[in-house]
Amino acid sequence: MSVDLVKTVDAIRKRLQSARLSGKIIGLVPTMGALHRGHFRLIKEARQDCNCVVVSIFVNPHQFGPGEDFEHYPGTLESDLAHCEELSVDVVFAPRVEEMYPREQLTFVEVAKLGDYLCGPHRPGHFKGVARVVLKLFNIVQPDRAYFGEKDAQQLAIVRRMVQDLNIPVDIVSVSTVRESDGLAISSRNQYLGRKERQRVPVLYRVLQIAKEQIQAGETGSQHILRKALRVLEEEPLVEVEYFEVVDPEQMHPVSKVVGSVRVCAAIRIGSARLIDNILCERE
Amino acid sequence: MSVDLVKTVDAIRKRLQSARLSGKIIGLVPTMGALHRGHFRLIKEARQDCNCVVVSIFVNPHQFGPGEDFEHYPGTLESDLAHCEELSVDVVFAPRVEEMYPREQLTFVEVAKLGDYLCGPHRPGHFKGVARVVLKLFNIVQPDRAYFGEKDAQQLAIVRRMVQDLNIPVDIVSVSTVRESDGLAISSRNQYLGRKERQRVPVLYRVLQIAKEQIQAGETGSQHILRKALRVLEEEPLVEVEYFEVVDPEQMHPVSKVVGSVRVCAAIRIGSARLIDNILCERE
Repeated sequence: MSVDLVKTVDAIRKRLQSARLSGKIIGLVPTMGALHRGHFRLIKEARQDCNCVVVSIFVNPHQFGPGEDFEHYPGTLESDLAHCEELSVDVVFAPRVEEMYPREQLTFVEVAKLGDYLCGPHRPGHFKGVARVVLKLFNIVQPDRAYFGEKDAQQLAIVRRMVQDLNIPVDIVSVSTVRESDGLAISSRNQYLGRKERQRVPVLYRVLQIAKEQIQAGETGSQHILRKALRVLEEEPLVEVEYFEVVDPEQMHPVSKVVGSVRVCAAIRIGSARLIDNILCERE
Repeated sequence: MSVDLVKTVDAIRKRLQSARLSGKIIGLVPTMGALHRGHFRLIKEARQDCNCVVVSIFVNPHQFGPGEDFEHYPGTLESDLAHCEELSVDVVFAPRVEEMYPREQLTFVEVAKLGDYLCGPHRPGHFKGVARVVLKLFNIVQPDRAYFGEKDAQQLAIVRRMVQDLNIPVDIVSVSTVRESDGLAISSRNQYLGRKERQRVPVLYRVLQIAKEQIQAGETGSQHILRKALRVLEEEPLVEVEYFEVVDPEQMHPVSKVVGSVRVCAAIRIGSARLIDNILCERE
């Protein structure tokens, strides 16, 4: 059976109606396309849990800021469909921008506090755009479960909080980050790396591990933890650090002391790429 | 069969699960209790259209401002239940505040522009509170249809827009205002009127009609229309006018010229009561 490609809100609702009425568990994997092994893991998880797997492919203009890479964001619908077929996805929902935003959007959804640090200040409006489009996709697909990658940990925290606060009837499933053999987290934006940059960029994961090792060894002072790791980053001339923080894993605000579990999060710029990564650390 | 009283989110979801799976049409009438003939009309409409009628009763603290009547808002659950029983309601959902807001709410929903005039500036935060609680109720009950009174026209416009913008899978049904024989729109807040105030307050509907008559007679200048009606209001010493506007019926912003249909909206204070009313006017 081949994957269904559906492009309109009415059509996806109609397509899923019988699945819903027959009590099937519907899983949604929201993506911006350019599917890679990170997405594949999300889809495989969904395939294991659900009777009906929907992958949405929508590059949402409202979550890109001016000067960001909306215009150049990789679009590869044909190969995305082939991957979905291979992974036994039931439906791909790939609406056009006008289908998702047929009129001026006057409704805004904001999750306060959780976007105050990390990517928030560097990408004004980004998480508002994410929260709204995720809510729209939830309302359109009405999934029982939705799958998000841990690589975008702040997005995941914001979506989780929105779901709790608004009583959205969906289970959020987080899926661990897929990495290259040298530790680089897989991301559509890795395509922007030149050969030299690609060689140097595993330093991002390395410094997260340095932070984690210190925490596991009993170090609790965030400043101390970060300083040691930052020294390694600063030896990389191609890398510019955007942020590097030890944060509370739910509230996503920096903590000065490690108590219980924390997440160490970083964003760097290297060449024309902006890459993010993070690691959950629990004291042993 | 007697009406079911359900107080928790889990219980209402469980209660409605079989109705949903058997394809029943679920209708929601969101109320703050103190049910009166205005609500009865909403419920009757829902009863005609739907196989399963849910009335929610929840006095939402987040839509009352400081100094407003949250503390004194009439609560009459027993007689509300009796009315629901009489009207063949299937389920009353009456959660406690802690059930609806078990933790700090970080998620905010705002419909821009539509709250800029009329009640918006006089009740800061009110429509944000309304939008969020309505969205929560929609997510909890997942109705096919939801019923709102035209008396709260600005609320209705905001809910409609939120539903469109966020692709919420619910049909919004508007129900015309129920009035006393002298024209007073029925409202829970009419209880706040003293005997003398009650005698004078029909002037509110009278001046809306004066505005409507002018529009039907071909007058198009909003200032002219309002001035004539305001003169009548100003003769009432007990009445203080909060606003009186001719607005676009979807965008809810004042228009200087009547083109197509408009809504004339007013809010007055009389004694300790604040009353609103409106009338849709189409040129003939």
